[in-house]
Amino acid sequence: MNMEAFILGTSGTMPLPNRHLSSVLLRREGEVFLFDCGEGTQVSLRSLNLKWKKIGAILISHTHADHVTGLPGMLMLSSQVDRSEPLQVIGPPRIAEYVEANRRVLEMYINFEIQVNEISEPEAPGVVYEGEGFQIRSFPVRHSRTCVGYAFREDPRPGIFHPHRAEECGVPRGPLWSRLQQGESVALDDGRVVEPGDVLGPPRPGRKFCYVTDTVAFPAIAEEVRNSDLLVCEGMFTEEFRETAVAKRHMTARDAARIARSAGGVKKLGLTHFSPRYTNRELKELVKEAREEFPDAFLARDRMHINIPYEE
Amino acid sequence: MNMEAFILGTSGTMPLPNRHLSSVLLRREGEVFLFDCGEGTQVSLRSLNLKWKKIGAILISHTHADHVTGLPGMLMLSSQVDRSEPLQVIGPPRIAEYVEANRRVLEMYINFEIQVNEISEPEAPGVVYEGEGFQIRSFPVRHSRTCVGYAFREDPRPGIFHPHRAEECGVPRGPLWSRLQQGESVALDDGRVVEPGDVLGPPRPGRKFCYVTDTVAFPAIAEEVRNSDLLVCEGMFTEEFRETAVAKRHMTARDAARIARSAGGVKKLGLTHFSPRYTNRELKELVKEAREEFPDAFLARDRMHINIPYEE
Repeated sequence: MNMEAFILGTSGTMPLPNRHLSSVLLRREGEVFLFDCGEGTQVSLRSLNLKWKKIGAILISHTHADHVTGLPGMLMLSSQVDRSEPLQVIGPPRIAEYVEANRRVLEMYINFEIQVNEISEPEAPGVVYEGEGFQIRSFPVRHSRTCVGYAFREDPRPGIFHPHRAEECGVPRGPLWSRLQQGESVALDDGRVVEPGDVLGPPRPGRKFCYVTDTVAFPAIAEEVRNSDLLVCEGMFTEEFRETAVAKRHMTARDAARIARSAGGVKKLGLTHFSPRYTNRELKELVKEAREEFPDAFLARDRMHINIPYEE
Repeated sequence: MNMEAFILGTSGTMPLPNRHLSSVLLRREGEVFLFDCGEGTQVSLRSLNLKWKKIGAILISHTHADHVTGLPGMLMLSSQVDRSEPLQVIGPPRIAEYVEANRRVLEMYINFEIQVNEISEPEAPGVVYEGEGFQIRSFPVRHSRTCVGYAFREDPRPGIFHPHRAEECGVPRGPLWSRLQQGESVALDDGRVVEPGDVLGPPRPGRKFCYVTDTVAFPAIAEEVRNSDLLVCEGMFTEEFRETAVAKRHMTARDAARIARSAGGVKKLGLTHFSPRYTNRELKELVKEAREEFPDAFLARDRMHINIPYEE
């Protein structure tokens, strides 16, 4: 089952001619989720030539302009095609007011249902979206206004199937093997019942993607992003501007790397939400500082595609 | 005195990866005015490396998303620099509600005064901005919601100075000539007073720029855009899609050209607000159809710079 992230933008505060505002699209076997939607997100999305029609939910970290002002356009864009499924918009308090005020004033014509689900208690981590075989969870972060991070987690997969164990149990090769692999119990001709646990290894973890931006660093983030296959996290400043970062309630690239390291089990860290003060060339300094703490850090770049494979 | 237009975008309804939403920036001797501000306008503006700090007023045709959703970002961008002058936002009713709702919900930090001037009677043409040596006038157009066009008109200039007439009147060459050229009366040593009219030709018209989009064609538009040095006007569709244009309350390229021709005195017609159905290459058909009616039609293109010289 395919799972991949597309980086739609990596800029913080303001879009730049060559850097869209921070946004990530996650696609899992045809289901599409968008994390943050600043001005220009629809343009970046279209430049990827993706199947954008099928966005299941747009998840907003917080209601600052650079994370939401692309929403009206994205909703209009989604109205250009026939769509019967509702589109969910999920975010901290005031996201409903934002969507409703803009719908009302702009008299937007939208030909499908929009369900705005405000996270009523953003200080309490919890599941905000349940899909088939996965959940999306929000958790609180600390910014100049209420802000959350998101964790997309697949359910655990069945363990590895061991053919020799099936043979030892007397299960004939064929359809019964498939059913055991799917986690079903099977009855043999002699009346014995074989359980999946008799022939499978321990359940294997599903994949995990996390998106964290616009926060100062603090230990509980590491708890939430533990074992991420991909963590996309703001690394807005170099250490030279640590004071600015703290004053503005943001993280340095090194902060992000320390979180990834201390969390444990993070496979890759993609830095994003770069300060406009850095040219694309100067961003190298950010990843250099991050790698001193966490070698598997990289710079997310606009239009980057990142495959998220199963760990075997 | 320099006057020039910069085309920031030419797309209608939706921005495309290579075509920003319709917006024009007009610069006259350092003063800057922006006509419409859809999603991404700030990106297009920055890609031109212009002095955007000095925007005097943002003039909005109507409050549909593709003409206003760039406003929050543009206001935030303007807050990145020290600015003491207020910024005017001018537009039809509900523009104040749009700006205020977004400021309130997004808690935008803006370090200068924003004056939102709603055009209280958009059905009545009238002056909406008075500058030194020019006026901006709005006039009603006909769209699916209240919409206006804008005409930027310089005051008339003094007539041409005729040196031989000054000599005939006995005005000595030197500072008195300059004062007469500026339109002042001067007293000679012998007590006679020479009036500017004695030495100048008839007053010459100032320059005129018009911006018209999101309307069906009707005769009064021609009255308003008469004698434009540059008319930027929507030409959203080819004739093949005339029915669509009328149904959506838009103009074809030929409609725009007919208005320019029937107005009289229009020097150049720049077509804009193109339907996303056309690729950049297919836009040639639009200008072909327009030129059959008005040979001085051209396709406005993103980042195009158009000088607006005095007519001599």
